[in-house]
Amino acid sequence: MSKVLTLGELLLRYSTNQGEQLSQASSLNLHYGGSEANVAIGLSSFGHEVKLLSKLPDNAIGQGAIYQLKRFGVNTNDIHFAEGRMGSYFVETGAGPRATSVVYDRKYSAFSFVEANEWDYDTIFDQVSLFHVSGITPALSPALAQLTIDFVKAAKSRGVLVSFDSNYRGKLWSLAEASAVFAKILPYVDYCSMGTLDALNILGIEAADSAYSEEEALAYYYQKMQEKYPNIEVFYSTRREVVSSDENYLTGTLWMDQTYYTSKKYHIPYIVDRIGGGDAFSAGVLHGLLKGQDAQEIIDFATGNTVLKHTVAGDALGLSEKEVAAFVQSDSSKISR
Amino acid sequence: MSKVLTLGELLLRYSTNQGEQLSQASSLNLHYGGSEANVAIGLSSFGHEVKLLSKLPDNAIGQGAIYQLKRFGVNTNDIHFAEGRMGSYFVETGAGPRATSVVYDRKYSAFSFVEANEWDYDTIFDQVSLFHVSGITPALSPALAQLTIDFVKAAKSRGVLVSFDSNYRGKLWSLAEASAVFAKILPYVDYCSMGTLDALNILGIEAADSAYSEEEALAYYYQKMQEKYPNIEVFYSTRREVVSSDENYLTGTLWMDQTYYTSKKYHIPYIVDRIGGGDAFSAGVLHGLLKGQDAQEIIDFATGNTVLKHTVAGDALGLSEKEVAAFVQSDSSKISR
Amino acid sequence: MSKVLTLGELLLRYSTNQGEQLSQASSLNLHYGGSEANVAIGLSSFGHEVKLLSKLPDNAIGQGAIYQLKRFGVNTNDIHFAEGRMGSYFVETGAGPRATSVVYDRKYSAFSFVEANEWDYDTIFDQVSLFHVSGITPALSPALAQLTIDFVKAAKSRGVLVSFDSNYRGKLWSLAEASAVFAKILPYVDYCSMGTLDALNILGIEAADSAYSEEEALAYYYQKMQEKYPNIEVFYSTRREVVSSDENYLTGTLWMDQTYYTSKKYHIPYIVDRIGGGDAFSAGVLHGLLKGQDAQEIIDFATGNTVLKHTVAGDALGLSEKEVAAFVQSDSSKISR
Amino acid sequence: MSKVLTLGELLLRYSTNQGEQLSQASSLNLHYGGSEANVAIGLSSFGHEVKLLSKLPDNAIGQGAIYQLKRFGVNTNDIHFAEGRMGSYFVETGAGPRATSVVYDRKYSAFSFVEANEWDYDTIFDQVSLFHVSGITPALSPALAQLTIDFVKAAKSRGVLVSFDSNYRGKLWSLAEASAVFAKILPYVDYCSMGTLDALNILGIEAADSAYSEEEALAYYYQKMQEKYPNIEVFYSTRREVVSSDENYLTGTLWMDQTYYTSKKYHIPYIVDRIGGGDAFSAGVLHGLLKGQDAQEIIDFATGNTVLKHTVAGDALGLSEKEVAAFVQSDSSKISR
Amino acid sequence: MSKVLTLGELLLRYSTNQGEQLSQASSLNLHYGGSEANVAIGLSSFGHEVKLLSKLPDNAIGQGAIYQLKRFGVNTNDIHFAEGRMGSYFVETGAGPRATSVVYDRKYSAFSFVEANEWDYDTIFDQVSLFHVSGITPALSPALAQLTIDFVKAAKSRGVLVSFDSNYRGKLWSLAEASAVFAKILPYVDYCSMGTLDALNILGIEAADSAYSEEEALAYYYQKMQEKYPNIEVFYSTRREVVSSDENYLTGTLWMDQTYYTSKKYHIPYIVDRIGGGDAFSAGVLHGLLKGQDAQEIIDFATGNTVLKHTVAGDALGLSEKEVAAFVQSDSSKISR
Amino acid sequence: MSKVLTLGELLLRYSTNQGEQLSQASSLNLHYGGSEANVAIGLSSFGHEVKLLSKLPDNAIGQGAIYQLKRFGVNTNDIHFAEGRMGSYFVETGAGPRATSVVYDRKYSAFSFVEANEWDYDTIFDQVSLFHVSGITPALSPALAQLTIDFVKAAKSRGVLVSFDSNYRGKLWSLAEASAVFAKILPYVDYCSMGTLDALNILGIEAADSAYSEEEALAYYYQKMQEKYPNIEVFYSTRREVVSSDENYLTGTLWMDQTYYTSKKYHIPYIVDRIGGGDAFSAGVLHGLLKGQDAQEIIDFATGNTVLKHTVAGDALGLSEKEVAAFVQSDSSKISR
Repeated sequence: MSKVLTLGELLLRYSTNQGEQLSQASSLNLHYGGSEANVAIGLSSFGHEVKLLSKLPDNAIGQGAIYQLKRFGVNTNDIHFAEGRMGSYFVETGAGPRATSVVYDRKYSAFSFVEANEWDYDTIFDQVSLFHVSGITPALSPALAQLTIDFVKAAKSRGVLVSFDSNYRGKLWSLAEASAVFAKILPYVDYCSMGTLDALNILGIEAADSAYSEEEALAYYYQKMQEKYPNIEVFYSTRREVVSSDENYLTGTLWMDQTYYTSKKYHIPYIVDRIGGGDAFSAGVLHGLLKGQDAQEIIDFATGNTVLKHTVAGDALGLSEKEVAAFVQSDSSKISR
Repeated sequence: MSKVLTLGELLLRYSTNQGEQLSQASSLNLHYGGSEANVAIGLSSFGHEVKLLSKLPDNAIGQGAIYQLKRFGVNTNDIHFAEGRMGSYFVETGAGPRATSVVYDRKYSAFSFVEANEWDYDTIFDQVSLFHVSGITPALSPALAQLTIDFVKAAKSRGVLVSFDSNYRGKLWSLAEASAVFAKILPYVDYCSMGTLDALNILGIEAADSAYSEEEALAYYYQKMQEKYPNIEVFYSTRREVVSSDENYLTGTLWMDQTYYTSKKYHIPYIVDRIGGGDAFSAGVLHGLLKGQDAQEIIDFATGNTVLKHTVAGDALGLSEKEVAAFVQSDSSKISR
Repeated sequence: MSKVLTLGELLLRYSTNQGEQLSQASSLNLHYGGSEANVAIGLSSFGHEVKLLSKLPDNAIGQGAIYQLKRFGVNTNDIHFAEGRMGSYFVETGAGPRATSVVYDRKYSAFSFVEANEWDYDTIFDQVSLFHVSGITPALSPALAQLTIDFVKAAKSRGVLVSFDSNYRGKLWSLAEASAVFAKILPYVDYCSMGTLDALNILGIEAADSAYSEEEALAYYYQKMQEKYPNIEVFYSTRREVVSSDENYLTGTLWMDQTYYTSKKYHIPYIVDRIGGGDAFSAGVLHGLLKGQDAQEIIDFATGNTVLKHTVAGDALGLSEKEVAAFVQSDSSKISR
Repeated sequence: MSKVLTLGELLLRYSTNQGEQLSQASSLNLHYGGSEANVAIGLSSFGHEVKLLSKLPDNAIGQGAIYQLKRFGVNTNDIHFAEGRMGSYFVETGAGPRATSVVYDRKYSAFSFVEANEWDYDTIFDQVSLFHVSGITPALSPALAQLTIDFVKAAKSRGVLVSFDSNYRGKLWSLAEASAVFAKILPYVDYCSMGTLDALNILGIEAADSAYSEEEALAYYYQKMQEKYPNIEVFYSTRREVVSSDENYLTGTLWMDQTYYTSKKYHIPYIVDRIGGGDAFSAGVLHGLLKGQDAQEIIDFATGNTVLKHTVAGDALGLSEKEVAAFVQSDSSKISR
Repeated sequence: MSKVLTLGELLLRYSTNQGEQLSQASSLNLHYGGSEANVAIGLSSFGHEVKLLSKLPDNAIGQGAIYQLKRFGVNTNDIHFAEGRMGSYFVETGAGPRATSVVYDRKYSAFSFVEANEWDYDTIFDQVSLFHVSGITPALSPALAQLTIDFVKAAKSRGVLVSFDSNYRGKLWSLAEASAVFAKILPYVDYCSMGTLDALNILGIEAADSAYSEEEALAYYYQKMQEKYPNIEVFYSTRREVVSSDENYLTGTLWMDQTYYTSKKYHIPYIVDRIGGGDAFSAGVLHGLLKGQDAQEIIDFATGNTVLKHTVAGDALGLSEKEVAAFVQSDSSKISR
Repeated sequence: MSKVLTLGELLLRYSTNQGEQLSQASSLNLHYGGSEANVAIGLSSFGHEVKLLSKLPDNAIGQGAIYQLKRFGVNTNDIHFAEGRMGSYFVETGAGPRATSVVYDRKYSAFSFVEANEWDYDTIFDQVSLFHVSGITPALSPALAQLTIDFVKAAKSRGVLVSFDSNYRGKLWSLAEASAVFAKILPYVDYCSMGTLDALNILGIEAADSAYSEEEALAYYYQKMQEKYPNIEVFYSTRREVVSSDENYLTGTLWMDQTYYTSKKYHIPYIVDRIGGGDAFSAGVLHGLLKGQDAQEIIDFATGNTVLKHTVAGDALGLSEKEVAAFVQSDSSKISR
């Protein structure tokens, strides 16, 4: 298995039970997450040696986040501690026609005050095969934007593969800000999670022919994005059809070897927890790429992993490769076509 | 915003968790409700100044009901306290094909012993724009039937609008008893929640032509009811298609300006709590009428409010006008047509 | 083992978690109890064949009470069902200096409407060794007072031993009312749970010499009560020193063979649930009497049983004779002297 | 009502809440069950006098199982106690596409060490109308296989009806082992729960014509099985269509008087707990047979009972005949056809 | 009853169950509090008309705080809403020798950004009898320090009584900073909660003669503080002896009319929740002063109120005057002397 | 920090909430523990590199145990997996005079089938400073007794320090069996947790002079044990005075450099969870010895650690050295002398 490095913020999630309003809750459920941390937990559970770089408040809340990572075998030795708070968010779980709603409280976090030179690149990249980061990290502050750019350059210059998940969040920065920063990151990226909206809004790809089916359009966008950044070997994203808060259809898609691959379409009639679904998908794709699997195998495995994530509470899914593979094999009869 | 007065009993609801039988429960969830109280909470949350008249036992249970009302801003200053008990009911929450079942324990309540002259009409109606009451209040005792009649007359004579929700409950009185009392109330009513069954069974309207669609029939009944009571400007009710205990389709309907209006048909694939749905609908309609909105706006808002009620545990829904309006706007893509 | 008959009301108890106020609870814990039912469960668990006569509402709540009795092997075949409600009460669990407080809601219960001739004496007393009833049953209505008198006479005339626990409840009737009814019951009683307050307030025994220690006074009252009712062979009661809601000292006392017996004084530094403590004591005493144990053995066992009751949530304690005996043996080293 | 005897193991089930992984649970829900125990509870709740023979560890866990049985009126007087453990299993409740998964921990149980001559046949079969056992009991050890054979012979020789539910469990024994033992049991059986897979894999019936519909094939297998064992009067099983972990369609089928009977097809859109569904079905069928109902009535009642079981948590369903009958009547409008 | 105005921050508290570590919690209990809010709730429950001035984030968390205040009748009409977060803190509940520990996360709150002129003094002080503020409010920012000074001056100039509770928090500012600000506030104060540590560390009173008993010393400090600020009519504070996290002794003390008053010493053997104890004491003292009770009555009532607070979970206690008075009367026998 | 190796079984604990009986529980709390695992977690949390050798069932329950160890940083790479079950035990939490009771279900565990040669000594002892094992491991089977003897010899021969905690369990083996095996282990031990009962019953030391105080006697036994096994440098144990289930006094004792050391006597008035207290004490002592602290420092730290364990739920305590040290410093004022 491979050595993987990732950089990102840890967040504390508070969520209500279904049917309960946030404004009237007398207790809340706790989960620790964060886009890169979720990917780290996924890859660690698949057997890779994964280290997360982050910064946490030096208190019991920060310690709770450390426990969550160690539980799944993620190396936390280079996480720094500082005065400050931990970013958090509140989730009022939706039901049926009422969508899940989120209240953010992530400003002023210890991580958002990270400056340059927190970590020594030569030490930190030693023996690393892959570096992964999402677009949330550079969105948190100009210093973090610069740090992210420095990291992908440092990785590239040391022969480390670079994985990037756009994860555009309109509450953190504007499309223009994201575009400017992404333009400095993408030339160093090997694997990239981006889809239709990213192509249109961030990369400025011309809209697909309106006669195209949704799938044809997505293949077109993948192709155009790759033309723009030929260094990026692999693009991937999920297609989600939302029936209600509780019910979705989900398909994984992958662009690799200039070819568009897709998984079966899964029906998820009862969603337990959708948060972290994209990260579980990324973990699945990166695992397949690191193992050198073929494209169809990769997309089937990754889609199985994200579907399973929807059936389990919590931001991160820590199933073994064997468990996910068993799911991908087994439930074909129950899958919507 | 307007000043609203309402009169009704508060009930304590005990409910099981889903999948649990009442006879085997070791704990029960508590909610305070009551048809008029639920409407009061809805209207108060929409910004109106609402006072509820009621009678409660002078103990911690009665105090709990007061807290629930005050939490949502309902004025409780004229609620009386007495020796006695609080009406309650037990709910064994259904699942799939098993319907929710209810065990009533509301007899002998402090409220059921209310006699005439509990409140002084001149004081209580001062500045009030609207008086609302449901058919449950007069069903509780002959004295309460008389008191309800007195109230609607007192309201009318002071230029206060009268709102009435039939809410016929077979466990409280017979159709004949209800018909006799309603006949004394309806001549004073301005806004009325009644539907097909009320028209047929209580008002004795002749059955609609069997060739009519369900919607045409409802419009027919609204028209006939209005012919019988031309003083009633507005009729409204919901149409519910029950797939299972957990899944319903819901449409709001309104008769106003001699015209039949209907909302979109909402799909509620996972019902959290159906109780109080009708009251949330009434609160929505009355809010629109008090604000002088047009008919389509009223029925859309009210239906959104009752659909949201189905996704939240508890008898009363206390969302703001802004929150309900946001829901009505947003989820158009997810609504079943 | 022996065949025991008892007659009494079943109640549904709602209780808060410690530190929670009743007026603000969002869920409540449920326990089924009732003085005679608790004794029945205790005796059944000790191996006796016990039948409870009662009347329950014909609904899921009544069924829940049946389950609770059957669980512990109490024969419920002659419990009647009727329209109506089940008596209940609310318990706000105390903490430290704040005492536990109780709100009753037991009026109008199905049981309180019991009339004469609900059960046929010849059938019901067949093979019965002991009939037990508490002073709560006759307090519920004049009809029940008469029924209780009829029952003790019917028992006596058939050679059945009669056990009576005064259980005076000021919320149910006055001391004068209780005195009048008890005077008709006590001439038929063999075993009686009464203490200092009963002697003074109900039987009108002259106050003990003020120089007496508390124990000497109690022995004096036992003796005087027995002089008044020589038919009563055994008197018993517990002496409780209340340090706080959570902490009591408890001693069992017994008057038998004209002699005063006492158990060790137990320290209960953390009370889980005090309700039903007296009934557990009665069950222990009656078990010993039915087995023909000697007085010291009886009072030690009964006191152990009531002490254990204080450490377990719920109205009734259903431990086996072996479990109680093991406790009485084992913890001598931990007992306060 | 009739006297019924059954023999089988009691198991302790630990289950997660939905959305929770077993490996990360910090608490688990407890239910006591066992195939024959579940049937016993069902029949007892329908009014029959049912005794379960079993062997339990002599500790609080064994006592917990006894309480569960007594709660529903099952006679536990001839359950034996021994050193040892209680078989248990862990259930990670599925959600949507993720199936429920089970981890067994039932080896070395007190029951699995049962030897011959635990019970005296003459005593135990006295007045018994029906003896019921499932294929799990003989699967637990060679001694239990022999004991099961002895029991069905002893029943037969005393004119007691014999009911057998194949309940083949691949984790307990091979098809070959089961076939050999079943061949010694089936000649004594009157009522038998077996379906397509049993016919093919255990009885070696030739596969049905591939042109047959699923229903025609099942009728064919029933007929062939009856030809092989003409002593068996009644065969029955359910047909289940699995949409997802949470959603099934269910139909009951019955072969009686050489005729194939089927219930309505029920839609269960939200399954609370599927475990024990087959036992609830058996209880329903056996109840109808014992009452001498006609075939259609039997299959409708039994199917209603198993559908209700899917909506209630726990292995056994203890509804009364009246409650099940009310369900079968009432919800016709909500049933999928 | 009187009209009371107060100004302060609302905080969201997260707390563990006893025996659970914060770093390992999977859910947390929620309570809304804040020193001035707790006093407001107390006074409102005693029947006064209380308005709280504050600033909250415009989201569901802010709304939750509003609900908590309205539930107890506190007027929230002049609370402002803004972008931002709500201050919070985490409580790891202690047990026995392990003290309760607190992690603060209150920086950058919406309230901490309050500037001058948020409220118009003439409007806000109309008809107000008493203005209350604690030393936490001026500690939150220099702007809030100035605003607090402005408020007490504005109150004074309008003839409004001024109540001040020092509430020194070392985590918010230094003793020197507090001293400087308090020096500008205290000349306008009428009622003041300060004790030994405040006298020594903030007001710089010379240490009491070491021969003094603790009580004599406290009386000396009260006298000296009053000599320094003769405008302050009343001083009060509690004396707490800590046996363990769960067990304290508590005595209320009051300096009024140049005399030292003290309550009985209460034993609290099992503390449910100590947070808000000081605020409950202040509410009790202010209630007595507003009612014009005599000093002993005041200190007895206030001490009873704070003792009760220790037995109830949550920051604020909302008992009625009658309930507190009943407690003060009743439990004399259980109180440690 | 040092590298530590340990060998032992992992157990799954099920426990009731306080006041609940095991036989009536509907859910149970889960904790993973095991004497050596608890020590491993303690030492890992103090900063040592700790590896646990064990054998687990290859299922979700085994995986749960792995998560618990990894969470606290214990190296699980050499834990083996096998068919089989995981040992477990049930805890009915005591209250006041009722002691906590335990039901074991640990027979037939995967670990109990461990044979010789599961691990290669040269690999496994590489760089290890200390090997720790308790007397539970050899008690589980003759093969494990031999394996334990082999391990201590292999450690000794490689210059690895050997730590042994007698942990005699009468339910696992007889005193004679333990004595025979311990006699083969103790000659290789450096640090040993044994106390008065071990000295008397297992090592056969002559009883101390009855005039000795309890402390003098313990010092005598330490001295005599050391005379018998001069290779053992350090002995240690705790002295516990049991007031009730909830309340103990605790003192740590240490024999080192031929001198008897003792900690302060701690009062634990409210015990949250006593299980694992001895292991927390061992972890504290071993940490001090590995760091080369002086004897008083060691015993103070270790006693603080075990006292803290009593205030936290779960078998293992994972506090940092800093947290424990802070506790030892801080609470001197609250400690009973």
